[in-house]
Amino acid sequence: MDAINRTSAEPYYQQLGRILEQRIKSKELSPGQRLPSESDLCRTFDLSRSTVRETLRSLQEQGLIRMIPRRGAFVAERNSGDWMLQVTRGFFESEVDGTRTVDTTVFRSGLEPLPREASDALGLEPGAAGFILERLRCLDGKPAVYSTNFMPPEVGAVLAGTDVLRGTQSLNQTLRAAGYQISSARREVAAVGAPELPARFLGLDVRDPVLLIRSLSRGADGRPFDYYRSYARSDVVTIAVEAQAMDGD
Amino acid sequence: MDAINRTSAEPYYQQLGRILEQRIKSKELSPGQRLPSESDLCRTFDLSRSTVRETLRSLQEQGLIRMIPRRGAFVAERNSGDWMLQVTRGFFESEVDGTRTVDTTVFRSGLEPLPREASDALGLEPGAAGFILERLRCLDGKPAVYSTNFMPPEVGAVLAGTDVLRGTQSLNQTLRAAGYQISSARREVAAVGAPELPARFLGLDVRDPVLLIRSLSRGADGRPFDYYRSYARSDVVTIAVEAQAMDGD
Repeated sequence: MDAINRTSAEPYYQQLGRILEQRIKSKELSPGQRLPSESDLCRTFDLSRSTVRETLRSLQEQGLIRMIPRRGAFVAERNSGDWMLQVTRGFFESEVDGTRTVDTTVFRSGLEPLPREASDALGLEPGAAGFILERLRCLDGKPAVYSTNFMPPEVGAVLAGTDVLRGTQSLNQTLRAAGYQISSARREVAAVGAPELPARFLGLDVRDPVLLIRSLSRGADGRPFDYYRSYARSDVVTIAVEAQAMDGD
Repeated sequence: MDAINRTSAEPYYQQLGRILEQRIKSKELSPGQRLPSESDLCRTFDLSRSTVRETLRSLQEQGLIRMIPRRGAFVAERNSGDWMLQVTRGFFESEVDGTRTVDTTVFRSGLEPLPREASDALGLEPGAAGFILERLRCLDGKPAVYSTNFMPPEVGAVLAGTDVLRGTQSLNQTLRAAGYQISSARREVAAVGAPELPARFLGLDVRDPVLLIRSLSRGADGRPFDYYRSYARSDVVTIAVEAQAMDGD
């Protein structure tokens, strides 16, 4: 079972992928652990380097491993349903796999005067109009995150008529397809007492502890195009950060 | 002022460093913005590529910019006193520059039976002994973070007789010097009501919202060597994450 079947129609790289995936899921390879080197994998399974690389790429795309230049491949530390703050992708875009259900309800969307906090963050004049998108995201039926996004008008315009406004399409993916790709984002986390509206939507009492995440996303030109405030129930959704040493750390 | 003085004794790379630093501090180059390319800097300032690279390296070491392979150099988004969760360095090790004061009080240190949460995280038997280090960190005189670290006995042993136990030396640096260098860490953040002891130390009322950060650090071999629980006042210390797009994100 742990060898490559040379007579199977299944490509070698997929067979190796299954073997490694099974070792990861069984915790034989535990989170954070370094995988055997490419050379070791080539030797152990009698495969070419290009096949081994194809396997690693595919495991990385599935989020099962993380490849660090010059250091190797490591078993990812995230679990299904975690919200990983250090990646630019959105929570419900790629971090939640098929084993958990996510429902999004849109409460508000449209052009409105921006609150000062949002216009400042986006570099717009105080009182400027912007596109506001207010959503509740439920994880496995439980209210998990109550978010308000604030965007410059021209960014919000690309959402018109899309299923983002019905809660069935990813905001990040839609913005990216329109040329607004996140290049970097700064996110701040704070513990606050839940204000009335988020408390009501999240099923909390007013002033219950809730996680507030404020995030500003910038494009490749460094210009901010999306600011959000999310109130998250950290007892419903695990919010995590994976730190990796850089050279010289 | 914005040109290289060819007759100065100050090395060219330092002169260029000052010029760029001043543009960053004046926000002419704003957080997240991409710096001019190496070639552009060479041309504009009539400098060699190796000089420009030396400047960029030095700015990166100071934390003013961040270099992303194949994408260029970007103005860092952090501020003095931020706790950046996606880097492996500790809060008080490198993120706080000379403009803010940090005081650490050690309340407890020594070998004790580990709580189940810590022995599980560290992969030790339930009830195993470990080294426990309990500290209060104040930022500019204000209680900011109340932390308890849990380490396997052989890791804690390297702290014996060091100033870590008097609160005047960095735990991370001391562990690193002893061969326990963080290769990866997983950190989870949650908003909780402050328990009695952290509340008292942090100057909060019991059940006031407080940020709980749980972190597990692993070495290059993937083995965990430090688990901590930190209660942080996010109204005193800004806790942030900087997300950068990877290729393919």
